[in-house]
Amino acid sequence: MTDIDLYEAMSTLRAVRRLRPDPIPDEVLHRVLQAAIWAPTGGNTQPWRVIAIRDPHKRQALQKLYQPAWQQFSAVYSKRFESLSTNEREKQERVLKASDTLAENFHLSPVILMFCFNPTLMAITDADLDRPSVVGGGSVYPAVQNTLLACRAEGLGCTITTLLCLHEKEVKQLLEIPEDWYTCAAVPIGYPVGRGHGPITRKPVEEMVYFDTWGSAR
Amino acid sequence: MTDIDLYEAMSTLRAVRRLRPDPIPDEVLHRVLQAAIWAPTGGNTQPWRVIAIRDPHKRQALQKLYQPAWQQFSAVYSKRFESLSTNEREKQERVLKASDTLAENFHLSPVILMFCFNPTLMAITDADLDRPSVVGGGSVYPAVQNTLLACRAEGLGCTITTLLCLHEKEVKQLLEIPEDWYTCAAVPIGYPVGRGHGPITRKPVEEMVYFDTWGSAR
Repeated sequence: MTDIDLYEAMSTLRAVRRLRPDPIPDEVLHRVLQAAIWAPTGGNTQPWRVIAIRDPHKRQALQKLYQPAWQQFSAVYSKRFESLSTNEREKQERVLKASDTLAENFHLSPVILMFCFNPTLMAITDADLDRPSVVGGGSVYPAVQNTLLACRAEGLGCTITTLLCLHEKEVKQLLEIPEDWYTCAAVPIGYPVGRGHGPITRKPVEEMVYFDTWGSAR
Repeated sequence: MTDIDLYEAMSTLRAVRRLRPDPIPDEVLHRVLQAAIWAPTGGNTQPWRVIAIRDPHKRQALQKLYQPAWQQFSAVYSKRFESLSTNEREKQERVLKASDTLAENFHLSPVILMFCFNPTLMAITDADLDRPSVVGGGSVYPAVQNTLLACRAEGLGCTITTLLCLHEKEVKQLLEIPEDWYTCAAVPIGYPVGRGHGPITRKPVEEMVYFDTWGSAR
């Protein structure tokens, strides 16, 4: 399952939220984790670690934190659908439904990958700016993206979730994460219930890319 | 140049800091930017844009901001080499020298990709925690990583830089970036002077991955 063209993997990497509880073979999980480690980090300090959670009790404990966080979030999130066209709203409602299923079954995905990071190992160049800092993420989300792409190659479904940051204290306690390490993403992975990966919806290049000056199409 | 196996691309994606000034064909640049756009973002809001800077005056202006920032940073950064073994120190000094070259020649890379983001389009779940926030980065650095991997596929050298955040105000003015958008990475790309991509040095899986509990190897 691992021979896949790069662009094919990227262009068919969709969020897969309905996962089968079937176990993931060790060698498959190992390849996914190796792919994560290949990612670049600032100064090659690799200021992240990942905990692969297979223990059913710990997965259950995470689900108990995740589901209420999702319910609270989705209540706010779905309000923005009111302004959408019927077509677009129906699409968003399908995503919402799949996300509800993920929240209900968070613990049933055979592995949850909890990505952790240590800010003292990072040069966070936007730390003092008067806006939300993101640069620390530059040394961990490339590894998360490699993970997702590797899952795509291996036929595993997955999606990035960050809602458990709302309960970071409890998560750290549950997984015995040290004081100076924090959490930045939980990625449930497993074989898809449905067809899994496939077509994705994105804005066209013309809307996302400018040349030389903001807003300039050429 | 685009048919490349996913794992091969990931495992040979090294920082390439010595770039030739030769232009990048439009269709190659387009494929790289399309790859960026395929990346997932929270709620599929795609809260980022990229400015592809080819204008030599603007690249020169960025170099004038980048080089002093690098010099200041490297003076601090290289202090940590003192505690390293001779072997490790020599390796780090080679990286430093390549980074010096990059800073001197920042404007000579034919394209600099400036990634921008809008935090109001993001659900930053770690915004209120008592530690540096990174979650906003989860909706932009996957796109940056796709960019690097696509460069690898296309035979283009590249590396993520974030030092220009130290001069975000000037960068925003130069590129006419609106008030509510910010910068999070500048990626100079171009064909490599030397052999370009190749072997990378990373910690082994055993050091980066735990199972069920922090620190547990199984």
